[in-house]
Amino acid sequence: MATLEELASLVKGKVVGDGKLELTGVSGLDTAQPGEISLIASAKALPAARESKASAFIFPSNLREFNFQGIEIDNPRMAFAQILWYFYPKKKYAEGIHPSAVIGEGFQHGPGCHIGPLVFIGDRVKLGKGVVIHPGVVIQDDVEIGDDSEIRPNVVLCHGTKIGNRVLIHPGAVIGGDGFGFEKTSDGRHLKVPQVGCVVIEDDVEIGSNVTIDRATTGQTLIGAGTKIDNLVQIGHNVKVGKDCIMVAMTGVAGSTKIGDRVTLAGQSGINGHITIGDDTVVFVRGMVISSLPPNSIVSGQPARPHGEDMRIQAAAGKLPELLKTIRQLEKRVAELEGKLN
Amino acid sequence: MATLEELASLVKGKVVGDGKLELTGVSGLDTAQPGEISLIASAKALPAARESKASAFIFPSNLREFNFQGIEIDNPRMAFAQILWYFYPKKKYAEGIHPSAVIGEGFQHGPGCHIGPLVFIGDRVKLGKGVVIHPGVVIQDDVEIGDDSEIRPNVVLCHGTKIGNRVLIHPGAVIGGDGFGFEKTSDGRHLKVPQVGCVVIEDDVEIGSNVTIDRATTGQTLIGAGTKIDNLVQIGHNVKVGKDCIMVAMTGVAGSTKIGDRVTLAGQSGINGHITIGDDTVVFVRGMVISSLPPNSIVSGQPARPHGEDMRIQAAAGKLPELLKTIRQLEKRVAELEGKLN
Amino acid sequence: MATLEELASLVKGKVVGDGKLELTGVSGLDTAQPGEISLIASAKALPAARESKASAFIFPSNLREFNFQGIEIDNPRMAFAQILWYFYPKKKYAEGIHPSAVIGEGFQHGPGCHIGPLVFIGDRVKLGKGVVIHPGVVIQDDVEIGDDSEIRPNVVLCHGTKIGNRVLIHPGAVIGGDGFGFEKTSDGRHLKVPQVGCVVIEDDVEIGSNVTIDRATTGQTLIGAGTKIDNLVQIGHNVKVGKDCIMVAMTGVAGSTKIGDRVTLAGQSGINGHITIGDDTVVFVRGMVISSLPPNSIVSGQPARPHGEDMRIQAAAGKLPELLKTIRQLEKRVAELEGKLN
Repeated sequence: MATLEELASLVKGKVVGDGKLELTGVSGLDTAQPGEISLIASAKALPAARESKASAFIFPSNLREFNFQGIEIDNPRMAFAQILWYFYPKKKYAEGIHPSAVIGEGFQHGPGCHIGPLVFIGDRVKLGKGVVIHPGVVIQDDVEIGDDSEIRPNVVLCHGTKIGNRVLIHPGAVIGGDGFGFEKTSDGRHLKVPQVGCVVIEDDVEIGSNVTIDRATTGQTLIGAGTKIDNLVQIGHNVKVGKDCIMVAMTGVAGSTKIGDRVTLAGQSGINGHITIGDDTVVFVRGMVISSLPPNSIVSGQPARPHGEDMRIQAAAGKLPELLKTIRQLEKRVAELEGKLN
Repeated sequence: MATLEELASLVKGKVVGDGKLELTGVSGLDTAQPGEISLIASAKALPAARESKASAFIFPSNLREFNFQGIEIDNPRMAFAQILWYFYPKKKYAEGIHPSAVIGEGFQHGPGCHIGPLVFIGDRVKLGKGVVIHPGVVIQDDVEIGDDSEIRPNVVLCHGTKIGNRVLIHPGAVIGGDGFGFEKTSDGRHLKVPQVGCVVIEDDVEIGSNVTIDRATTGQTLIGAGTKIDNLVQIGHNVKVGKDCIMVAMTGVAGSTKIGDRVTLAGQSGINGHITIGDDTVVFVRGMVISSLPPNSIVSGQPARPHGEDMRIQAAAGKLPELLKTIRQLEKRVAELEGKLN
Repeated sequence: MATLEELASLVKGKVVGDGKLELTGVSGLDTAQPGEISLIASAKALPAARESKASAFIFPSNLREFNFQGIEIDNPRMAFAQILWYFYPKKKYAEGIHPSAVIGEGFQHGPGCHIGPLVFIGDRVKLGKGVVIHPGVVIQDDVEIGDDSEIRPNVVLCHGTKIGNRVLIHPGAVIGGDGFGFEKTSDGRHLKVPQVGCVVIEDDVEIGSNVTIDRATTGQTLIGAGTKIDNLVQIGHNVKVGKDCIMVAMTGVAGSTKIGDRVTLAGQSGINGHITIGDDTVVFVRGMVISSLPPNSIVSGQPARPHGEDMRIQAAAGKLPELLKTIRQLEKRVAELEGKLN
């Protein structure tokens, strides 16, 4: 429960209407109930807002004339996120190790850690303070996890994985499986190249459900601080991902590639191995990047090209069948002209 | 064991040959042993049928002349499925909770439930009757599961997930991981938007191995009754999938998209976020759907276009290198003509 | 610890420099420390080699003039793998069954098996000798595993799966989930076709993290000896994969397809169902193979075409927007010529 003016103060917005209005929750326009506050992110949401049962709204300043009450603010989506945090604070887990957990030798951990039921922890594992390990997680030998990180159910952290502070890993993710490295023998078989490096996940990274991140052959596979990885993403061995990147679901990055900071890889993208993607690059949905890209690139397509060029090619491709006809006609017309002149 | 006439009666087909013939099992044409019944789905299967060791066959009426014995029926594939069910009935699991399972507070369940070894169940979980929970499953707080549903090994059902009756979830699937939602701060970092909605799976849904279905930001991510989802499919937050859809392996659906009833998404498809896919639409293999589609659409390609148009574009693309030459020649011929005339 | 001449003898290479040099480890060029040996795979690696701290190198004969000490050998990458094995031998696990494991009836196993904590093993399971089962693995009824195989954490082996010798399965893989088979009823619903076959994994196969391999409808889904499968690959029911194939991450193979020996499927490939891929075929990254391919095919693109043809089409597609202009100009020029002549 909070008053409108309390929430406005929380997000540093301006109260529009009755500041004493009591709000019981926050929800999307279609699901909000009377007493709740909702979000009008932009003018596009106005029809849904008019049908919403919400009692107040967070909205940008250019919507004032529509006579909603609520909070006027420059970045209403950010304010919505903050108010969600207010009504749904991070769940607290009781300190302690569940008796069904199996813990190896030399286990060290800070205060406030929660080790759930049916967890396996190998030897020489170190946790910081306030770490939450959910049921079914397997943590192999020599793993280290920083403060306030949360490892959700059935995640596997293979031996030697290093995880920073405030990292969140969703269920079923596998961190530190062997890289895919083989040498072909003269008789066409594949000899496994031992994968003896590790995976390092820096602070504030989020990793989605059933993601796979492979350990390096030697050295490290690295996920930079603040990077957010969606579900079912694959990161090959020895990849270096920079800081504050966004990697949307089902994207794959092949081995030894170096991705800069603030790079966005949209859903189902693919990035070739042994290349470099410059800072602030955007790869559009299902882009297939074959070769290195300079900083600030914006690419799309299969193979990926500069986005404007790809759009023109796509538009032209759409006209191909008609073009084919035009060319056949031109051939005929030119032949006729040639007949007349020769 | 069943006689041919018993099986024919089961599937409402017509006996061809000796109705008293005793059949010991059912299998594919290449694996069937003497004494077993197999399937001739259409005339294409006749060469394999002639080499099969099966003692009887299920076949459509237009194959009668080939002198097989067995069951003549309009839909032989459906009859094959029914006879498979006859010989391989659903496995029964003993009622009870294995002592190694860890169960939270306020657990409610109907009769006939089987909770396997090494299962974790959180607080306030409710199961209907006849629910089977396999080993290694993690069920978080406030999950509800209807009658006769089966949750296979190492599945994770995150808090608040609601599952209907007769739902089957294959190993490793993660239902209710956080949606992928962030707001960019002014310094280029990504603030997590709390994902406080849930996932609702209606009756008779099947979900494949290692599938990921994200919870809604607020409200519900919904999988409609009768929909079948193959392995490694990703469903984003707030997606609504209609009834009786087919989603083949490795397909991804981005957030907030609404998919109608009886939609087919073939393997490796991708569906953009915030769009609407009309009822009875078919997206061909690896189709990449960027914008909304009306009911009964049939699309393919990247980006997806009406299938006939895409086929024409693909055919024309195959001729592009030759076309390039033709145009260069045309340019030369036209230049020559111009030379003569000017 | 080993001397240079000991390592050279191990890999059958030629010592260049001081054979008595003691080496403490092996690592990549950028991570190697003084005292370690590293790899110069080819001339491309020379700049990195000059900056490396490594004390010795493995290099091909044509690099002798650069005055490195180390091991000269025809296949330096293979020698690097062998020296990695020398310094990082396969980890040994203590024989025994952890008391937290839950074991069904009729369990048989050879000597030297390690069954880790929190493992579930169903009824009538048979293991050979030296099998390692990591924590959180679920093995259902009637599974068989050959000698010296290793099943990593949270893998699920569904009932009836047969696994050969020296097989390595990475975390989270699901072997033997139901195939995706349904028959459409007259009212548009989907009746499940029972999937009563199994999965057979032959000797020396490696399977990546979170891979899914479905059981056959009847008969077997088969992965041939020596085949290596990367993370997040999907293999449909009744697929037969030959020997010594390479299937890179995120590749999907639809049901009933037959893949020959020594086939390479690069990352994010897709192979249609019910087709045949000939021996020694290579499908380039994200190739989408619609129809059968003869042996030794080299294909790429969506849809996949012979690679040379696909490259020409891609090159021509890049010129499409310009081509479009050229054709419009040609039309105008021909019309002018026609005007003059008619």
